[in-house]
Amino acid sequence: MEPNSENSVADATLLIRSECWEELRPLLKDLHPADIAELIESTPESLRAGVFDLLDDETKADVLSELDDAVEEELLEALTPEKISDIVEEMAPDDAADVLGEMDADRSESILNLMDREDSEDVRELLAFDEETAGGIMTTDFVAMSSHKTARDALEYIGSLELDEPLHSTYVIDNDGKLLGYVQIWKMLKAGNRDRTLDELAEAEAIFARTDTDQEEVARLMSKYDMNSLPVLDADGRLVGRVTIDDVVDVLQEEASEDIFKLAGSSDEELEYSSPFQASRARLPWLLITLGTGLVTSMILKAFMHSISTMEVLALSFFVPIVMAMGGNTGIQSSTLIIRGLAIGSFSGRNLYRVFLREIMTGMLMGGICGTAIGLWAAFIIGDGTAYPPAVLGLAVGLALFSAMMFAATFGAFAPLLLNRCKFDPAVASGPFVTASNDIIALLIYYGIIVLMLPAAG
Amino acid sequence: MEPNSENSVADATLLIRSECWEELRPLLKDLHPADIAELIESTPESLRAGVFDLLDDETKADVLSELDDAVEEELLEALTPEKISDIVEEMAPDDAADVLGEMDADRSESILNLMDREDSEDVRELLAFDEETAGGIMTTDFVAMSSHKTARDALEYIGSLELDEPLHSTYVIDNDGKLLGYVQIWKMLKAGNRDRTLDELAEAEAIFARTDTDQEEVARLMSKYDMNSLPVLDADGRLVGRVTIDDVVDVLQEEASEDIFKLAGSSDEELEYSSPFQASRARLPWLLITLGTGLVTSMILKAFMHSISTMEVLALSFFVPIVMAMGGNTGIQSSTLIIRGLAIGSFSGRNLYRVFLREIMTGMLMGGICGTAIGLWAAFIIGDGTAYPPAVLGLAVGLALFSAMMFAATFGAFAPLLLNRCKFDPAVASGPFVTASNDIIALLIYYGIIVLMLPAAG
Repeated sequence: MEPNSENSVADATLLIRSECWEELRPLLKDLHPADIAELIESTPESLRAGVFDLLDDETKADVLSELDDAVEEELLEALTPEKISDIVEEMAPDDAADVLGEMDADRSESILNLMDREDSEDVRELLAFDEETAGGIMTTDFVAMSSHKTARDALEYIGSLELDEPLHSTYVIDNDGKLLGYVQIWKMLKAGNRDRTLDELAEAEAIFARTDTDQEEVARLMSKYDMNSLPVLDADGRLVGRVTIDDVVDVLQEEASEDIFKLAGSSDEELEYSSPFQASRARLPWLLITLGTGLVTSMILKAFMHSISTMEVLALSFFVPIVMAMGGNTGIQSSTLIIRGLAIGSFSGRNLYRVFLREIMTGMLMGGICGTAIGLWAAFIIGDGTAYPPAVLGLAVGLALFSAMMFAATFGAFAPLLLNRCKFDPAVASGPFVTASNDIIALLIYYGIIVLMLPAAG
Repeated sequence: MEPNSENSVADATLLIRSECWEELRPLLKDLHPADIAELIESTPESLRAGVFDLLDDETKADVLSELDDAVEEELLEALTPEKISDIVEEMAPDDAADVLGEMDADRSESILNLMDREDSEDVRELLAFDEETAGGIMTTDFVAMSSHKTARDALEYIGSLELDEPLHSTYVIDNDGKLLGYVQIWKMLKAGNRDRTLDELAEAEAIFARTDTDQEEVARLMSKYDMNSLPVLDADGRLVGRVTIDDVVDVLQEEASEDIFKLAGSSDEELEYSSPFQASRARLPWLLITLGTGLVTSMILKAFMHSISTMEVLALSFFVPIVMAMGGNTGIQSSTLIIRGLAIGSFSGRNLYRVFLREIMTGMLMGGICGTAIGLWAAFIIGDGTAYPPAVLGLAVGLALFSAMMFAATFGAFAPLLLNRCKFDPAVASGPFVTASNDIIALLIYYGIIVLMLPAAG
């Protein structure tokens, strides 16, 4: 529900098309930075800088943090380092580090040198961390107070701060900067609490991240323990920052996108603006694996032509597409369950051996049903006019599909479980890779069973 | 990083196996409810109730909200309505409604009747909303104050409350209960703000949900505008609840899981405990679509056998698996981009027509590359000993793959875009459905081109 902003965005779009900059300016003032970012993204490239120029530095800072990387980069390229340093100074340190981290080192260095010493130091510290760790997504904006202060002191101190970001609690530390716990502001307000020390009021914070904790683990912890902010400690146990829930929401979206695109044999970078060339570059490697598998398959098929008669190959080739498609889909279903289950922690505490066993049994059950169906079809509908007795053809085709599906379910579950055990990302085993393996194996099983069964009967 | 809890969980697991309940009790006191929930889930079924019984009512309430639905149900079945009403009274109203909503109406009614009137009324109201709307996920725990009160009044009032959930801000309403805005607690603390009225301090809350707003829309709004809590209004514009970010994190996870499983032709219900029968029931419908497509395919292949000679069909059948697999994968890549892009709002403000055009161009580009590769392979490696001149076979096969991939990219993008336009869930068009359609079309294109080209040359 954004009843006002939707109209304003429509009005703004019209004003941009007619380049009425002065009429646009007051309208932009009423829009949320997230809406301005969307507006700029949908503006033709040549007019984007014009819209961005109308904003004051603070709004520019907010809008930049919301923009797609590609558009952000494009807008920043047109600005001088002096101008950028003014904007970046308005940002929270973590957002500033994100922006500067995207630039080449020379340019970001010259911008950092133009910034206030205090601001630039915070940003420099954050830039040192890997982007996908707690250090890379944390902010250094937090309040930490000594444990012997009273709630009254704390409330007074908080009242004296000029804060850009919402503040809900203060961390409590000992004299060495070690984290003892936290106190939420509303708890300090409670009658009778004002004269108590933070030490007495603090809830122990047993859950924290280190600067090098992976962002996926950060997201898992915060979502498991329903936390709005997670403290980040350095190697010596000193509090150096906190990760806020809005960044974790972004991480969860990103990680889910990453897994989804990996399953399809592509990359979530495609969600950013990209040309057909960039899209092809992300997708082709997986298609080439499929192609390679297909070429191997065509060799196998050609080899079989020599081992059984032409008419026999022909009758059997009717069912090759089914066996392959069913094997591929069954495998994907199993891998998807395992990959997603591992990603969101559904299996934590569960016996993975039993999950695996369940997949094999599911494959047998579904293979039994589908194998029976295709066997009947082969025997009664297709069987006439081929080189084999219909009943034998039906039995062979049915058995082949059953085996191929059972194998696909097993392999589809096994591959990501194995990768996960070896500390690799299970999602890479997915999609095209599992499908391609299942394609070849399904074909081998199919012709293998046929060769074993049919000559005896035929 | 949960250094202590990991050890405690391991200790607890040992104590459970040896059924040392009295030794277990103090250990459970130190564990986070989310950890206790995981512990219970990994405990053999027969011992779960024993562990749960050791907890006090408040912890039982917290643990229940964290448990998988299946385990929650199992534990509740063993309890009397009296016992359950004691536990449910300790829950936040939205969690209580979730628990009672899972039971049959008679049982939940008898539990509601046993509860405190005030508690049960809140829960009854929430139970009336559809589970997947803002009303279904909101909590009625919030603080709203009249606009003419001062910050000092508000701080005093908040200090007098007994709250279970964290409170970061108070909503500001007019005399009719209509929402005017909100004030964060830390802002009230600011020097000079104490004697100002809430009206003066309030930030306008332009972003809100209605009780019937879909939970996906709620998640989209909160993640777009980086909100920790979103007000929910009834049809008359009165504030009736708020959605907190931890519930949205769950929604985002759920929705991503839903899309991922739909892409694979399955259902995210599989992530809960389920038997091979339940897993098969979720997956079989999609496999049967694939099977049906395959059977149609086998008919098409049989029909082609009559239109061209046996040897010709044979040579061409080598490439059927490749053409089908490449078409299927290309289609999935396009649908995945569109479905995920629509789900997380990447295309908002972008021209969907251009996104669609890009997919067609990507399909042409990739089809050109793969078509050339397979054409050369067909001409030089497989071509010998078939019924066609190698160059003609190569050209026909290459052109067929190019067309099939271009079509697959186009259809893979078009199907979800069309469904989205018609207000259907684009994810249902995905996975097996798009693959199956692409399989048939790819085969028709393949044999169509072959029939058109080869007889003239052969």
